[in-house]
Amino acid sequence: MSDPATRADDWLDAVSWDDNGLVAAIAQERGTGKVLMMAWMNREALRLTRESGHAVYWSRSRQRLWHKGESSGHQQVVRDIRLDCDGDVVLLEVEQRGGIACHTGRHSCFYRALDESAAWRAVEPVLKDPDAIYSKG
Amino acid sequence: MSDPATRADDWLDAVSWDDNGLVAAIAQERGTGKVLMMAWMNREALRLTRESGHAVYWSRSRQRLWHKGESSGHQQVVRDIRLDCDGDVVLLEVEQRGGIACHTGRHSCFYRALDESAAWRAVEPVLKDPDAIYSKG
Repeated sequence: MSDPATRADDWLDAVSWDDNGLVAAIAQERGTGKVLMMAWMNREALRLTRESGHAVYWSRSRQRLWHKGESSGHQQVVRDIRLDCDGDVVLLEVEQRGGIACHTGRHSCFYRALDESAAWRAVEPVLKDPDAIYSKG
Repeated sequence: MSDPATRADDWLDAVSWDDNGLVAAIAQERGTGKVLMMAWMNREALRLTRESGHAVYWSRSRQRLWHKGESSGHQQVVRDIRLDCDGDVVLLEVEQRGGIACHTGRHSCFYRALDESAAWRAVEPVLKDPDAIYSKG
Protein backbone atom coordinates (compact mmCIF):
# COMPACT_ATOMS: atom_id res chain seq x y z
CA MET A 1 0.00 0.00 0.00
CA SER A 2 1.13 3.50 -0.75
CA ASP A 3 1.59 6.12 1.86
CA PRO A 4 -1.62 8.07 2.63
CA ALA A 5 0.15 11.41 2.22
CA THR A 6 1.33 10.33 -1.21
CA ARG A 7 -2.10 9.04 -2.23
CA ALA A 8 -3.61 12.37 -1.19
CA ASP A 9 -1.51 14.06 -3.86
CA ASP A 10 -2.53 11.72 -6.67
CA TRP A 11 -4.86 14.35 -8.12
CA LEU A 12 -1.97 16.82 -8.37
CA ASP A 13 0.25 14.19 -9.95
CA ALA A 14 -2.40 13.69 -12.64
CA VAL A 15 -1.79 17.23 -13.88
CA SER A 16 0.71 17.63 -16.74
CA TRP A 17 2.81 20.46 -15.33
CA ASP A 18 4.82 22.33 -17.96
CA ASP A 19 8.58 22.91 -17.91
CA ASN A 20 8.05 25.77 -15.47
CA GLY A 21 5.88 23.65 -13.20
CA LEU A 22 2.72 25.47 -14.26
CA VAL A 23 -0.73 24.64 -15.60
CA ALA A 24 -3.05 27.04 -17.42
CA ALA A 25 -6.21 27.87 -15.45
CA ILE A 26 -9.37 29.29 -17.02
CA ALA A 27 -11.94 30.94 -14.75
CA GLN A 28 -15.53 30.70 -15.98
CA GLU A 29 -18.37 32.40 -14.12
CA ARG A 30 -21.09 30.25 -12.66
CA GLY A 31 -24.52 31.22 -13.90
CA THR A 32 -23.50 33.47 -16.78
CA GLY A 33 -20.99 31.02 -18.29
CA LYS A 34 -18.78 34.01 -19.05
CA VAL A 35 -15.07 33.29 -19.43
CA LEU A 36 -13.51 35.80 -17.06
CA MET A 37 -9.77 35.27 -17.34
CA MET A 38 -6.94 32.84 -17.84
CA ALA A 39 -3.94 32.68 -15.53
CA TRP A 40 -1.42 30.11 -14.33
CA MET A 41 -1.10 27.85 -11.30
CA ASN A 42 1.78 25.93 -9.84
CA ARG A 43 1.24 22.86 -7.70
CA GLU A 44 0.89 24.86 -4.49
CA ALA A 45 -1.59 27.29 -6.06
CA LEU A 46 -3.83 24.46 -7.23
CA ARG A 47 -3.61 22.71 -3.87
CA LEU A 48 -4.50 25.95 -2.06
CA THR A 49 -7.35 26.61 -4.47
CA ARG A 50 -8.94 23.29 -3.54
CA GLU A 51 -8.25 23.63 0.18
CA SER A 52 -9.41 27.23 0.56
CA GLY A 53 -12.20 27.21 -2.02
CA HIS A 54 -10.83 30.46 -3.44
CA ALA A 55 -8.78 30.82 -6.63
CA VAL A 56 -5.06 31.07 -6.02
CA TYR A 57 -2.83 31.59 -9.04
CA TRP A 58 0.91 31.83 -9.66
CA SER A 59 1.94 35.26 -10.83
CA ARG A 60 4.60 34.78 -13.50
CA SER A 61 5.51 38.48 -13.46
CA ARG A 62 5.86 38.67 -9.69
CA GLN A 63 7.02 35.05 -9.25
CA ARG A 64 4.83 34.46 -6.25
CA LEU A 65 1.48 33.03 -5.24
CA TRP A 66 -1.36 35.37 -6.09
CA HIS A 67 -4.49 35.04 -4.01
CA LYS A 68 -6.97 36.49 -6.48
CA GLY A 69 -8.64 39.49 -4.87
CA GLU A 70 -5.92 40.02 -2.25
CA SER A 71 -5.67 43.71 -3.23
CA SER A 72 -8.98 44.33 -4.96
CA GLY A 73 -11.29 42.24 -2.80
CA HIS A 74 -12.48 40.60 -6.02
CA GLN A 75 -12.04 37.02 -4.88
CA GLN A 76 -13.21 34.02 -6.86
CA VAL A 77 -15.17 31.38 -4.95
CA VAL A 78 -14.46 28.06 -6.67
CA ARG A 79 -17.43 25.72 -7.17
CA ASP A 80 -15.95 23.17 -9.57
CA ILE A 81 -12.51 22.20 -10.87
CA ARG A 82 -12.13 20.44 -14.21
CA LEU A 83 -9.09 18.99 -15.98
CA ASP A 84 -8.79 18.63 -19.73
CA CYS A 85 -7.97 15.50 -21.73
CA ASP A 86 -4.26 16.30 -21.92
CA GLY A 87 -4.08 17.30 -18.27
CA ASP A 88 -2.44 20.62 -19.03
CA VAL A 89 -5.40 22.98 -18.60
CA VAL A 90 -7.66 23.46 -15.59
CA LEU A 91 -11.14 24.97 -15.82
CA LEU A 92 -12.57 26.62 -12.72
CA GLU A 93 -16.23 27.39 -12.23
CA VAL A 94 -16.27 30.47 -10.01
CA GLU A 95 -18.45 33.05 -8.37
CA GLN A 96 -16.80 36.40 -9.00
CA ARG A 97 -16.94 38.70 -5.97
CA GLY A 98 -17.74 42.28 -6.96
CA GLY A 99 -18.56 41.18 -10.50
CA ILE A 100 -15.12 42.32 -11.65
CA ALA A 101 -12.37 39.91 -12.68
CA CYS A 102 -10.16 42.25 -14.72
CA HIS A 103 -7.59 44.67 -13.35
CA THR A 104 -8.99 47.25 -15.82
CA GLY A 105 -12.21 47.28 -13.79
CA ARG A 106 -14.20 45.21 -16.25
CA HIS A 107 -16.28 42.10 -15.68
CA SER A 108 -14.09 39.93 -17.93
CA CYS A 109 -10.53 40.26 -19.17
CA PHE A 110 -11.74 39.38 -22.69
CA TYR A 111 -13.20 42.79 -23.41
CA ARG A 112 -11.57 43.38 -26.80
CA ALA A 113 -13.37 42.00 -29.86
CA LEU A 114 -11.98 41.80 -33.38
CA ASP A 115 -14.22 43.85 -35.65
CA GLU A 116 -14.81 43.53 -39.40
CA SER A 117 -11.96 45.91 -40.22
CA ALA A 118 -9.56 43.73 -38.20
CA ALA A 119 -9.25 46.14 -35.29
CA TRP A 120 -9.59 45.24 -31.62
CA ARG A 121 -12.45 47.19 -30.06
CA ALA A 122 -13.26 47.44 -26.35
CA VAL A 123 -16.84 46.17 -26.20
CA GLU A 124 -17.33 45.92 -22.44
CA PRO A 125 -17.62 48.82 -20.01
CA VAL A 126 -15.33 49.71 -17.14
CA LEU A 127 -17.48 49.03 -14.09
CA LYS A 128 -15.12 50.59 -11.58
CA ASP A 129 -12.11 52.86 -11.91
CA PRO A 130 -8.95 50.78 -11.34
CA ASP A 131 -7.54 53.60 -9.20
CA ALA A 132 -10.49 53.15 -6.87
CA ILE A 133 -10.12 49.35 -6.89
CA TYR A 134 -6.47 49.35 -5.90
CA SER A 135 -6.25 52.48 -3.74
CA LYS A 136 -5.05 51.95 -0.19
CA GLY A 137 -6.83 55.04 1.11
CA MET B 1 1.60 57.12 -43.55
CA SER B 2 2.34 53.50 -42.90
CA ASP B 3 2.24 50.84 -45.57
CA PRO B 4 -1.25 49.31 -46.00
CA ALA B 5 0.13 45.79 -45.78
CA THR B 6 1.76 46.67 -42.47
CA ARG B 7 -1.35 48.33 -41.13
CA ALA B 8 -3.38 45.25 -42.02
CA ASP B 9 -1.28 43.29 -39.54
CA ASP B 10 -1.76 45.69 -36.65
CA TRP B 11 -4.26 43.37 -35.01
CA LEU B 12 -1.69 40.56 -35.01
CA ASP B 13 0.99 42.89 -33.64
CA ALA B 14 -1.33 43.70 -30.72
CA VAL B 15 -1.05 40.10 -29.53
CA SER B 16 1.62 39.37 -26.91
CA TRP B 17 3.20 36.31 -28.48
CA ASP B 18 5.19 34.20 -26.04
CA ASP B 19 8.83 33.16 -26.41
CA ASN B 20 7.74 30.39 -28.78
CA GLY B 21 5.66 32.79 -30.86
CA LEU B 22 2.39 31.38 -29.51
CA VAL B 23 -0.78 32.62 -27.88
CA ALA B 24 -3.22 30.51 -25.85
CA ALA B 25 -6.62 30.09 -27.52
CA ILE B 26 -9.78 29.07 -25.67
CA ALA B 27 -12.74 27.77 -27.68
CA GLN B 28 -16.14 28.44 -26.15
CA GLU B 29 -19.32 27.13 -27.72
CA ARG B 30 -21.88 29.62 -28.96
CA GLY B 31 -25.27 29.07 -27.38
CA THR B 32 -24.29 26.69 -24.60
CA GLY B 33 -21.37 28.80 -23.32
CA LYS B 34 -19.49 25.55 -22.76
CA VAL B 35 -15.70 25.81 -22.72
CA LEU B 36 -14.69 23.13 -25.22
CA MET B 37 -10.88 23.19 -25.28
CA MET B 38 -7.75 25.24 -25.06
CA ALA B 39 -4.98 25.03 -27.60
CA TRP B 40 -2.26 27.28 -29.04
CA MET B 41 -1.94 29.49 -32.11
CA ASN B 42 1.01 31.05 -33.84
CA ARG B 43 0.67 34.18 -35.94
CA GLU B 44 -0.21 32.25 -39.09
CA ALA B 45 -2.83 30.15 -37.29
CA LEU B 46 -4.58 33.23 -35.93
CA ARG B 47 -4.44 34.94 -39.31
CA LEU B 48 -5.89 31.87 -41.03
CA THR B 49 -8.59 31.55 -38.36
CA ARG B 50 -9.82 35.04 -39.16
CA GLU B 51 -9.52 34.65 -42.93
CA SER B 52 -11.15 31.22 -43.16
CA GLY B 53 -13.67 31.59 -40.36
CA HIS B 54 -12.59 28.18 -39.05
CA ALA B 55 -10.33 27.55 -36.06
CA VAL B 56 -6.74 26.83 -36.99
CA TYR B 57 -4.31 26.01 -34.18
CA TRP B 58 -0.60 25.31 -33.89
CA SER B 59 0.09 21.77 -32.80
CA ARG B 60 3.01 21.89 -30.39
CA SER B 61 3.47 18.12 -30.49
CA ARG B 62 3.45 17.89 -34.28
CA GLN B 63 5.00 21.35 -34.84
CA ARG B 64 2.63 22.23 -37.64
CA LEU B 65 -0.60 24.07 -38.36
CA TRP B 66 -3.62 22.10 -37.23
CA HIS B 67 -6.85 22.84 -39.04
CA LYS B 68 -9.26 21.69 -36.34
CA GLY B 69 -11.43 18.93 -37.78
CA GLU B 70 -9.06 18.07 -40.63
CA SER B 71 -9.16 14.38 -39.63
CA SER B 72 -12.37 14.18 -37.62
CA GLY B 73 -14.57 16.56 -39.57
CA HIS B 74 -15.25 18.30 -36.28
CA GLN B 75 -14.47 21.80 -37.46
CA GLN B 76 -15.09 24.91 -35.42
CA VAL B 77 -16.86 27.80 -37.16
CA VAL B 78 -15.59 30.98 -35.52
CA ARG B 79 -18.18 33.67 -34.78
CA ASP B 80 -16.18 36.00 -32.54
CA ILE B 81 -12.55 36.53 -31.55
CA ARG B 82 -11.65 38.22 -28.27
CA LEU B 83 -8.31 39.26 -26.78
CA ASP B 84 -7.63 39.57 -23.09
CA CYS B 85 -6.25 42.55 -21.19
CA ASP B 86 -2.66 41.29 -21.31
CA GLY B 87 -2.94 40.30 -24.96
CA ASP B 88 -1.66 36.79 -24.33
CA VAL B 89 -4.92 34.82 -24.48
CA VAL B 90 -7.49 34.65 -27.28
CA LEU B 91 -11.10 33.58 -26.72
CA LEU B 92 -13.00 32.13 -29.68
CA GLU B 93 -16.76 31.84 -29.83
CA VAL B 94 -17.38 28.81 -32.02
CA GLU B 95 -20.00 26.53 -33.45
CA GLN B 96 -18.73 22.99 -32.95
CA ARG B 97 -19.42 20.75 -35.93
CA GLY B 98 -20.57 17.29 -34.85
CA GLY B 99 -20.93 18.48 -31.25
CA ILE B 100 -17.56 16.89 -30.41
CA ALA B 101 -14.46 18.95 -29.65
CA CYS B 102 -12.39 16.33 -27.81
CA HIS B 103 -10.27 13.61 -29.39
CA THR B 104 -11.75 11.23 -26.79
CA GLY B 105 -15.12 11.61 -28.52
CA ARG B 106 -16.61 13.90 -25.89
CA HIS B 107 -18.32 17.24 -26.30
CA SER B 108 -15.69 19.10 -24.27
CA CYS B 109 -12.09 18.33 -23.36
CA PHE B 110 -12.87 19.32 -19.74
CA TYR B 111 -14.67 16.12 -18.86
CA ARG B 112 -12.81 15.30 -15.63
CA ALA B 113 -14.15 16.88 -12.44
CA LEU B 114 -12.44 16.88 -9.07
CA ASP B 115 -14.71 15.12 -6.59
CA GLU B 116 -14.91 15.50 -2.82
CA SER B 117 -12.34 12.78 -2.23
CA ALA B 118 -9.86 14.65 -4.46
CA ALA B 119 -10.12 12.24 -7.38
CA TRP B 120 -10.66 13.17 -11.01
CA ARG B 121 -13.87 11.61 -12.30
CA ALA B 122 -15.03 11.49 -15.91
CA VAL B 123 -18.43 13.20 -15.76
CA GLU B 124 -19.24 13.53 -19.45
CA PRO B 125 -20.10 10.72 -21.84
CA VAL B 126 -18.21 9.56 -24.89
CA LEU B 127 -20.52 10.52 -27.74
CA LYS B 128 -18.60 8.70 -30.45
CA ASP B 129 -15.88 6.07 -30.39
CA PRO B 130 -12.55 7.75 -31.24
CA ASP B 131 -11.70 4.78 -33.48
CA ALA B 132 -14.77 5.64 -35.53
CA ILE B 133 -13.93 9.34 -35.56
CA TYR B 134 -10.42 8.90 -36.87
CA SER B 135 -10.79 5.81 -39.05
CA LYS B 136 -9.93 6.27 -42.68
CA GLY B 137 -12.23 3.45 -43.77
